[in-house]
Amino acid sequence: MNSQAEATPLLTPELDQLHAYWRACCYLAAGMIYLRDNPLLREPLRPEHVKRRLLGHWGSSPGLSFIYVHLNRLIRTRNQEMIFLAGPGHGAPGVLAPVYLEGTYSEVYPDKGQDLEGLKRFFKQFSFPGGIGSHCTPELPGSIHEGGELGYSISHAFGAAFDNPELLVAVVVGDGEAETGPLATSWHSNKFLNPIRDGVVLPILHLNGYKINNPTILSRIPNEELACLMRGYGWVPYFVEGEDPTRMHQQMGATLEQVHDQIRAIQQEARTTGKTQRAHWPMIVLRTPKGWTGPSEVDGHKVEGFWRAHQVPLADVHENPEHLRQLEDWLRSYRPDELFDAEGRLIPELKALAPKGQRRMSANPHANGGLLRRALRLPDFRDYAIPVPKPGTTHHFNTKPTGTLLRDVMVKNPTNFRVFGPDENTSNKLDAIYEASKKLWLCDFLPEDADGGELAPDGRVMEMLSEHTLEGWYEGYVLTGRHGFFATYEAFVHIIDSMYNQHAKWLAISREIPWRAPIASLNLLITSTVWRQDHNGFTHQDPGFLDVVINKNPRVTRIYLPPDVNSLLSTVHHCLQSRDDINVIVADKQNHLQYLDVDAAIKHCTKGIGIWEWASNDQGAEPDVVMVGCGDIPTKEALAATALLREHFSDIRIRFINVVDLFKLQPPREHPHGLSDADFDSLFTKDKPIIFNFHGYPWLIHRLAYRRTNHKNLHVRGYKEKGNINTPLELAINNEIDRFSLAIDVIDRVPRLQVAGAHIKEKLRDMQIECRNYAYEHGIDKPEFDQWAWPF
Amino acid sequence: MNSQAEATPLLTPELDQLHAYWRACCYLAAGMIYLRDNPLLREPLRPEHVKRRLLGHWGSSPGLSFIYVHLNRLIRTRNQEMIFLAGPGHGAPGVLAPVYLEGTYSEVYPDKGQDLEGLKRFFKQFSFPGGIGSHCTPELPGSIHEGGELGYSISHAFGAAFDNPELLVAVVVGDGEAETGPLATSWHSNKFLNPIRDGVVLPILHLNGYKINNPTILSRIPNEELACLMRGYGWVPYFVEGEDPTRMHQQMGATLEQVHDQIRAIQQEARTTGKTQRAHWPMIVLRTPKGWTGPSEVDGHKVEGFWRAHQVPLADVHENPEHLRQLEDWLRSYRPDELFDAEGRLIPELKALAPKGQRRMSANPHANGGLLRRALRLPDFRDYAIPVPKPGTTHHFNTKPTGTLLRDVMVKNPTNFRVFGPDENTSNKLDAIYEASKKLWLCDFLPEDADGGELAPDGRVMEMLSEHTLEGWYEGYVLTGRHGFFATYEAFVHIIDSMYNQHAKWLAISREIPWRAPIASLNLLITSTVWRQDHNGFTHQDPGFLDVVINKNPRVTRIYLPPDVNSLLSTVHHCLQSRDDINVIVADKQNHLQYLDVDAAIKHCTKGIGIWEWASNDQGAEPDVVMVGCGDIPTKEALAATALLREHFSDIRIRFINVVDLFKLQPPREHPHGLSDADFDSLFTKDKPIIFNFHGYPWLIHRLAYRRTNHKNLHVRGYKEKGNINTPLELAINNEIDRFSLAIDVIDRVPRLQVAGAHIKEKLRDMQIECRNYAYEHGIDKPEFDQWAWPF
Repeated sequence: MNSQAEATPLLTPELDQLHAYWRACCYLAAGMIYLRDNPLLREPLRPEHVKRRLLGHWGSSPGLSFIYVHLNRLIRTRNQEMIFLAGPGHGAPGVLAPVYLEGTYSEVYPDKGQDLEGLKRFFKQFSFPGGIGSHCTPELPGSIHEGGELGYSISHAFGAAFDNPELLVAVVVGDGEAETGPLATSWHSNKFLNPIRDGVVLPILHLNGYKINNPTILSRIPNEELACLMRGYGWVPYFVEGEDPTRMHQQMGATLEQVHDQIRAIQQEARTTGKTQRAHWPMIVLRTPKGWTGPSEVDGHKVEGFWRAHQVPLADVHENPEHLRQLEDWLRSYRPDELFDAEGRLIPELKALAPKGQRRMSANPHANGGLLRRALRLPDFRDYAIPVPKPGTTHHFNTKPTGTLLRDVMVKNPTNFRVFGPDENTSNKLDAIYEASKKLWLCDFLPEDADGGELAPDGRVMEMLSEHTLEGWYEGYVLTGRHGFFATYEAFVHIIDSMYNQHAKWLAISREIPWRAPIASLNLLITSTVWRQDHNGFTHQDPGFLDVVINKNPRVTRIYLPPDVNSLLSTVHHCLQSRDDINVIVADKQNHLQYLDVDAAIKHCTKGIGIWEWASNDQGAEPDVVMVGCGDIPTKEALAATALLREHFSDIRIRFINVVDLFKLQPPREHPHGLSDADFDSLFTKDKPIIFNFHGYPWLIHRLAYRRTNHKNLHVRGYKEKGNINTPLELAINNEIDRFSLAIDVIDRVPRLQVAGAHIKEKLRDMQIECRNYAYEHGIDKPEFDQWAWPF
Repeated sequence: MNSQAEATPLLTPELDQLHAYWRACCYLAAGMIYLRDNPLLREPLRPEHVKRRLLGHWGSSPGLSFIYVHLNRLIRTRNQEMIFLAGPGHGAPGVLAPVYLEGTYSEVYPDKGQDLEGLKRFFKQFSFPGGIGSHCTPELPGSIHEGGELGYSISHAFGAAFDNPELLVAVVVGDGEAETGPLATSWHSNKFLNPIRDGVVLPILHLNGYKINNPTILSRIPNEELACLMRGYGWVPYFVEGEDPTRMHQQMGATLEQVHDQIRAIQQEARTTGKTQRAHWPMIVLRTPKGWTGPSEVDGHKVEGFWRAHQVPLADVHENPEHLRQLEDWLRSYRPDELFDAEGRLIPELKALAPKGQRRMSANPHANGGLLRRALRLPDFRDYAIPVPKPGTTHHFNTKPTGTLLRDVMVKNPTNFRVFGPDENTSNKLDAIYEASKKLWLCDFLPEDADGGELAPDGRVMEMLSEHTLEGWYEGYVLTGRHGFFATYEAFVHIIDSMYNQHAKWLAISREIPWRAPIASLNLLITSTVWRQDHNGFTHQDPGFLDVVINKNPRVTRIYLPPDVNSLLSTVHHCLQSRDDINVIVADKQNHLQYLDVDAAIKHCTKGIGIWEWASNDQGAEPDVVMVGCGDIPTKEALAATALLREHFSDIRIRFINVVDLFKLQPPREHPHGLSDADFDSLFTKDKPIIFNFHGYPWLIHRLAYRRTNHKNLHVRGYKEKGNINTPLELAINNEIDRFSLAIDVIDRVPRLQVAGAHIKEKLRDMQIECRNYAYEHGIDKPEFDQWAWPF
């Protein structure tokens, strides 16, 4: 353990000023929770000055401000570029306060100016309907981390630090948040920080002591144990603990200087020698009382330093004169008259303590990453296309050429593009990327790694078996203006459902904020899909992420299911250029049938949905049935069903549609990509049966298309949780997305086929049994089905 | 660090036998990956003996078996009751092997007997269509943890150990899995294990070295750092490392004895003194080569001890004679002829090494928890009901009486019922439970905890800020035959989407297995819901968990939205008795309007859906419109809309329906709770407009009801991601679930109202504006709306 209890780097005037600045922060934080009028207490506090409903969280606010003002000092004295992430979800008052004091808030929201009127509005609107959020929302300048859901602060911080060698990312980790799984493993991110090319993350674990009503684990284990934990995670911990402000200012000032020296030494050593190795970076454990400087006792109950300080320490202020008096005493204890001038402006001596211009953490362009975003240099994706001489006759691994494309994107964008994946990039057939850049690895190396390890300390492929950490890194990376690509297993992308939700909410808000510049979209390739789990079985079968995706704001949600190599390339190319969206791409990694040459793929993907003429025979007439494929394997089975039907019924007319852009199915009033009703009707007819073979859970399609004219004839097949150890065809049969089930479906729904069709249905059912038997005997599908090709 | 390199507790005959038993395990593990015939190599190995498709994971199998045979020794020599959880997802061969050898497998699957024929079938069906899964699936006797998705092994293990004082739960943690967030924080579970009343968890961190293609983090940091990490987590680590079997047997044997001594000493100390305090329990770090004892090199590439050993070390065995020869050499290296008799049975000397009967980890009833499950003793829930003299006129906190009910359930079931929640039980108004039992707390205490801390070392309320850990504990607890209740924030239940999916899959399979006895259902109370986030804002608004729930097998999924206190009590009472399901209950914690007295609530909840006669005025006639409320706040708004309409249109006839059991909406062929079409039609009419006010995302209702006769007239309102800092009514207005929007909807859809309705619509729109303005001015909703009561 390291401690600087005796160091006193701050001399008196600076110490007093720093303390005064912090008092101003604490005053504002309390003021925004309580006051709707009389913002600087220029008159005695009366009940009508206090909000009717008291909302907001005082508990961690003083500590957050304390950190902020000390970081400001480091920025000024060391000329250090820095941004600030507040993990503690509800501590926004402690961040809003210094952001307002350094002027940025008024710059972007001129109605909340640096005067009494502005301050009053700032107070009143905090945590108020239509007002300022009680987290570090996108509306807060300098924020890239809302902290509404807990656990992602450190991974976001690392994402921001990657490829920003001059940047220090200070991240306050709440001790409540520290109990979450995502946070607990994200401490290991230090093993992925390259001291030459990356910036640095300085975690400040804030032992505030309590969650809502409970003590936190890390605050109630001995310091030695906590220090051991941090050292085990690979950090060098420094402890700053206490409650006396003067001593704490000295300790914090000294510790930050020492920590900064250490960071600079590590960076300088690596950068001058050119030797990249894992560093043991410093981190700070800051222990302060919860609700520090607030009421120490209320109605005979301990408040400061206890869980009762979590939200609003003094309730019933309107009804309870004693509480009102206590509130006034508390607010006046910060001596606002000494801090603000007659107009309500922070006095110049204090104003001078804040960094200037873009050095302010709230105005740093890294925290408004769109300002720094450069469009990716993209190769011509057509160069990676595979020839498809005749649709539906050749096979290829669908994701492989995308791996090659990504390789060259990486080459062309050596400092602002990274690929993320949980140890599955090879398994997912994207391993061509390693030709451009290896997997980042800074832990120990062994001689055998040279033979296929694909590891390097300067690799740009980020692999760790934590979807949470990867997603957090990736979000932090794009939020600070860079680009990336994340490929992961379909079943386990549910692990980050909640992170998806939060990022989608962030984007839905941030894209409406005029001063926030657009950032790169998040690109998620969902692969190793439900239909090809083979021996992985039931636990690995879950296409339900799409059901989560679809609930979020249509302005930021995109779902693509390209059926083959060239359509995937076209889709990925599009996604890499898009902004402020989340692009979810579903494509399996295995060897699949190919349908479209590159020109056809571009045309098809541009439309997002369309008739495949070569697979249809309804030209110039109304079809008997519309067959739809959406997703790689469902498309193959739907095609095979089409062929079976045409072989058995010479006069059947089938229209074949493929859907790439799932939101085409929704009405345009629901999603910007939605097809007009007229276009939908012209594709799907107004009254013919539609057999829709879908990649995911079938009900999703009904949810998208329930208002369409022909919805009553829409029959969707998809995954219905009927799986185990299955061959692909057997799994398809179990869930009725196989060619035989689909053909039977058509026979059942086209009246004129029903008589002649009866014995054909028998035959098709026999085929299903035969397929199953073959699989049970040989462990594989019959090659004639596996290698099936379009016969017309 | 602790190491027993020099201890040699095993004497020669025992050592040889133990080693032989392990050789038998390794032989079986390799055999099940490769062989379809010639199971004991009684003839030379030919290509046709080998499966066509080689699936399965060799990598961690030898290590798992190694641990298993050593634990068997401990069970025998110490008479220790024990169960076994295998974290490494794909290592099933290493567990299947000893389970088969100790006879349990053949007992439950007689076709896989202890003879050549049985062995052949066992081999062939492993990871084969229709056969044996390649994880520790529910079909595997002794398993309560499939390990298909990684990260939950430790929390499952703790769940099993709670309230089982004589049980030792051995859990192998894979070093890949150890990188996940849920696993990383679950190490802290040791702070929630009471040495008097609980059993113990012995984690064995298996440093196998590699994930699919990558080294693992924990295997590539110095041992000192790893030991520090484990000590920081509060464990006492013991290292067992090497590859020479003889030395490793001695080390492992000695370490297990020492560790067991230490466990017993901690337990004895606590149990004789009666003093409960946090213990520093031992854990083992086992470092062995990946694919240990397998081919060390193939085609010039290192395999044993490298990532190439992850799956199938020798591929192309059919085509490559050299590989076939290498496979045969490898298999014969275990000398199967010495291990099995002529009939293919393990020789008696080795058979004697396995524990007997229920002492076998694969036959321990704790791992088939339904066998031990005792029905909960439940108080009469009617005693907790509140009086509701007139529907829709009084208010109460909806979850509060359920807290009292749970308190008494806890009193009546002092050793087999626990309540779980992430530090929100007070916030969620369930704090009456603390009258029966405090929050379990074994870390440091402070004097102030006595004033409202509600902490106790023998508390039975489990609170930690990790939804993952809580869910894992809870699953482990019910899987071993106990009961529980988990209350959590709606928006953040998405954090455990994936755990829900996996548990639902487990139940879907396990309930079909005849020898698995039913276990208690998982009860999830989703509270602090979307409509009452007030200052928490947009990040806390997410009712989408239901969309995840609904995708899983209908045999195990249940969703209830009781609208008030008494219907929630009735629902909870039902759920606490149910088996093999996952019950999701949505109910907000705030002060809400009450509708049903207890008799009405029981009747209504038993039906799950029904007309509220007192709120309807269509008696004896067809209604003009069907108004539906589903969820507490949507029901209130729908009722208020009904009242508004009846006030403005004296002759309007409205039928009011409330839905508690969401699956009633689905057809009975889709879900066992589904209403028949006839019943649905008689409730919802065949042609009248339906205004359905739903708690969640509106599309979910269409997905359930799209095949119903009157679907074309079904208009659903729900949450549409339109939120920020809002008052409840303002949020309702933004998402159009408010009374005014609903009334306007009705006017628009009932033709005869449209002329007279035009100016009323204007008025309703003005009301919306007025409500918003009031909220923006006062920060709260107008009391007349907040405290609105049914006027008829």
